[in-house]
Amino acid sequence: MPESQTPYDELCSLTRQIATLESVSRLVAWDQETYMPAGAAGARARQMAMLAGIVHERKTAPRMGELIQACEEDPDVTGDPLRTACVREMRRDYELATKLPGELVAELARVGSEAQQVWKRARTESDFALFRPSLETMVALTRQKAECYGWGDGEPYDALINEYEPETTARQIEAIFTPLRDRLSAFIAEVRDNGTPPDTSPLDVQIPADRQHALGLFILKSIGFDLQCGRLDTTTHPFCEGLAPGDTRLTTRYHEERFTDALYGTMHEAGHGIYEQGLPKGSHFGTPLGEAISLGIHESQSRMWENFVGRSRAFWTWALPHAREYLGSPIEPFSTGQLTAAVNTASPSLIRVEADEATYNLHIMVRFEIERALISGDLPPADVPGAWNERYKSFLGVDVPDDRRGCLQDVHWAFGLIGYFPTYCLGNLYAAQFWETIRSQIPDLDTQIARGRFDALRIWLNENIHAHGRRYRAGELCERVTGKPLGPDPLLRHLESRIRPAYGL
Amino acid sequence: MPESQTPYDELCSLTRQIATLESVSRLVAWDQETYMPAGAAGARARQMAMLAGIVHERKTAPRMGELIQACEEDPDVTGDPLRTACVREMRRDYELATKLPGELVAELARVGSEAQQVWKRARTESDFALFRPSLETMVALTRQKAECYGWGDGEPYDALINEYEPETTARQIEAIFTPLRDRLSAFIAEVRDNGTPPDTSPLDVQIPADRQHALGLFILKSIGFDLQCGRLDTTTHPFCEGLAPGDTRLTTRYHEERFTDALYGTMHEAGHGIYEQGLPKGSHFGTPLGEAISLGIHESQSRMWENFVGRSRAFWTWALPHAREYLGSPIEPFSTGQLTAAVNTASPSLIRVEADEATYNLHIMVRFEIERALISGDLPPADVPGAWNERYKSFLGVDVPDDRRGCLQDVHWAFGLIGYFPTYCLGNLYAAQFWETIRSQIPDLDTQIARGRFDALRIWLNENIHAHGRRYRAGELCERVTGKPLGPDPLLRHLESRIRPAYGL
Repeated sequence: MPESQTPYDELCSLTRQIATLESVSRLVAWDQETYMPAGAAGARARQMAMLAGIVHERKTAPRMGELIQACEEDPDVTGDPLRTACVREMRRDYELATKLPGELVAELARVGSEAQQVWKRARTESDFALFRPSLETMVALTRQKAECYGWGDGEPYDALINEYEPETTARQIEAIFTPLRDRLSAFIAEVRDNGTPPDTSPLDVQIPADRQHALGLFILKSIGFDLQCGRLDTTTHPFCEGLAPGDTRLTTRYHEERFTDALYGTMHEAGHGIYEQGLPKGSHFGTPLGEAISLGIHESQSRMWENFVGRSRAFWTWALPHAREYLGSPIEPFSTGQLTAAVNTASPSLIRVEADEATYNLHIMVRFEIERALISGDLPPADVPGAWNERYKSFLGVDVPDDRRGCLQDVHWAFGLIGYFPTYCLGNLYAAQFWETIRSQIPDLDTQIARGRFDALRIWLNENIHAHGRRYRAGELCERVTGKPLGPDPLLRHLESRIRPAYGL
Repeated sequence: MPESQTPYDELCSLTRQIATLESVSRLVAWDQETYMPAGAAGARARQMAMLAGIVHERKTAPRMGELIQACEEDPDVTGDPLRTACVREMRRDYELATKLPGELVAELARVGSEAQQVWKRARTESDFALFRPSLETMVALTRQKAECYGWGDGEPYDALINEYEPETTARQIEAIFTPLRDRLSAFIAEVRDNGTPPDTSPLDVQIPADRQHALGLFILKSIGFDLQCGRLDTTTHPFCEGLAPGDTRLTTRYHEERFTDALYGTMHEAGHGIYEQGLPKGSHFGTPLGEAISLGIHESQSRMWENFVGRSRAFWTWALPHAREYLGSPIEPFSTGQLTAAVNTASPSLIRVEADEATYNLHIMVRFEIERALISGDLPPADVPGAWNERYKSFLGVDVPDDRRGCLQDVHWAFGLIGYFPTYCLGNLYAAQFWETIRSQIPDLDTQIARGRFDALRIWLNENIHAHGRRYRAGELCERVTGKPLGPDPLLRHLESRIRPAYGL
């Protein structure tokens, strides 16, 4: 190391190297989902494991710990708010990487891999009893994980949320989720009882995948996803991978009998992608200042473009002529109003990934309450089906006919992803709260969107959210930007404003 | 390391790790040529450099040297011919990796990168004087490289060939190339003076790229390239990348006005790919026993499928009905005989990459003689254009109108690839010599090919060539398989047998 190199510089140089290796891992993972031939699966697993090993070794190197400590005591860092934030996040990453013993990580991976196989069979056979032992083991291991991470004055589940949504506690989430749950549940019942469901037949038209793809690319360009620094491909499960600076890759999937699946899927991933492209990776790549804050904030960006923009009347005012051009005659007969109404339903259903924008949040409530109780020990894994079905009845008013369409529908718990579900709903909440601020600061936003002008919105998001990297935690950023702590009201107001007109209320 | 691990086991475990990392580098390089967005170029260069650094560090680790030496003295290795061959090749790789000082490697990379830019401009402007200083620097550095590698009782150029064609000397090559050059040159003149050029209009038809692609995939499947363990994509410069076990990727390019470009390009890369898929990567991945012998042997496989199979009358007997099915009406009017003749021309031209099967070899002779003289010092870089033009006139009978179509046409020298060109012609020579043996051992080969049966040929190649990995050096393998050292006669016989009928001689 050159004599002039400070601990901060050396630290950033180490994290940049790690980030470069991680960017290679992401490329390898992307290829696995897109173009890898089936026969390469074995070799691919060894490549991934090898890279993961090298990254883990570097992330947990004692030198990292020494440098972080030196930075925490260095006036050149502590006197600079940006560097202070950067080192705070590096400390966080180092703790997360070093706190779990290698054996526990290996055991979680092994059990997770087995449990996924068992879960697949259990779901097919709709047989929870088959999955129960795997779930019990996974819950026990996850509680061990929480013990290793530790938590403040809250509860073990906090330690798990923290992996995905830093420094956010179950109690904070509960304080927002509970009123949201009750009021949303009541609103959905009111809509069911008094509203007239919109006609969704405009969506039931056949559109070839290549036409949908062309429309998707046009929408991406229009809303400002930079295709010179990104791609759109097709996979079974759509995702966005912020691979590397200048390299953000989206995927989608096409259902020829329901074109809005791909349209909104693509806009959702584009929201993630615009966030990735907006992060200051030029100057801060490989440090927390060039990275996304949390899953919740990431999801707020995807939901904003998918729902707040994409399901608005203003959007369809602009988009419909283009959709007609790209998709052709099947959608010719329909008006802006008909399409807007058709994509703003609030119709309780059984499956989370097929749920509409409003009821989706209640699916998350069920999962949040159950996994929190699993980790606290209040709910034995054996009682999950009962707890699940009871909540679906109470929150959504639906009867769960079997576990396949009930508590066995998601892979997350088999995988050990506990503490992850709430981030989906937090995303909606953050998006709604940002959206109200944006509308007050860009008063003619609807007019702009109706003219296909998305730059003011994108620039606002960039300046207020993307540009900061991980400088602020999610809750702090929300207060800075909106002037208020996160709450349920904006999301409720948004949903009502979209659904009432669609249901003639 | 477990107590029971032998030096040989530890060594193989280290080389397997290196090979896994190299397989990641290959994927990253493949992506760069196929799907990488343009904006990712900077990040991609850093990813490649980072991986190259880690690989280099591991390849040159002192522990590698210790283990190789321990193996060379271990009776468990020296008593086993397979392990002995394996360690011999590991020694070779270790020496190649450790003999060049880091500064020289960096300087070669830096100058190579600059020289490529200069070469591009010089070629566009057809201005050799512009490129001359770069060539002088590159020749001087390459001579330094040869000094570092060292050579036996031959000449510095041997050290350079050795990188690509192990243990093959300029004198050995000259002994084959000179009679080949003289006899081929005379034969081509005879054809020009006495033959009637075949009608190539059957190739001058318009075929959309998607139809050519469908035919290409059909041919790949038919000749036995396993698409479960591979892919075919489109790039500006076609290549084959044996990425990893179960993962061999080919690329091609489509010219809508000349369908045989892609057809033969695809068969050429498929030949490389079938070799990669035939290497015993299951049991020997990451050791020399699972790797290809040399560029010359690799090229023998690609040329065999492209030319020896693909330009034969037997091939067109089988392929024409399928080509009609995939390519449609444009090729309906033509017969097997017409197509076979059209793809067997011997027509001197200026540009290597556009040359036909016969004259191609003479393009290589020019380059071999010039680069050998550059490295020995007999030819000053300033005299390259003169030496080039003189040889094109003498070997091929053509006048070079300018340096753009003369000595500035190839990027190799700018890149520092000196000693590489001969392997293209060695590939043709090995292919021809193997081909004569194959025909004697599979007497009904033509009948099989005419029926679309390629398995006997593929199995022969697999058992006699692919399965050995690097157990034998190229020359040794040739003698084992064909009973004779490599010589010019089989290639000359092959070319005459194809060209005489096409020219009515």
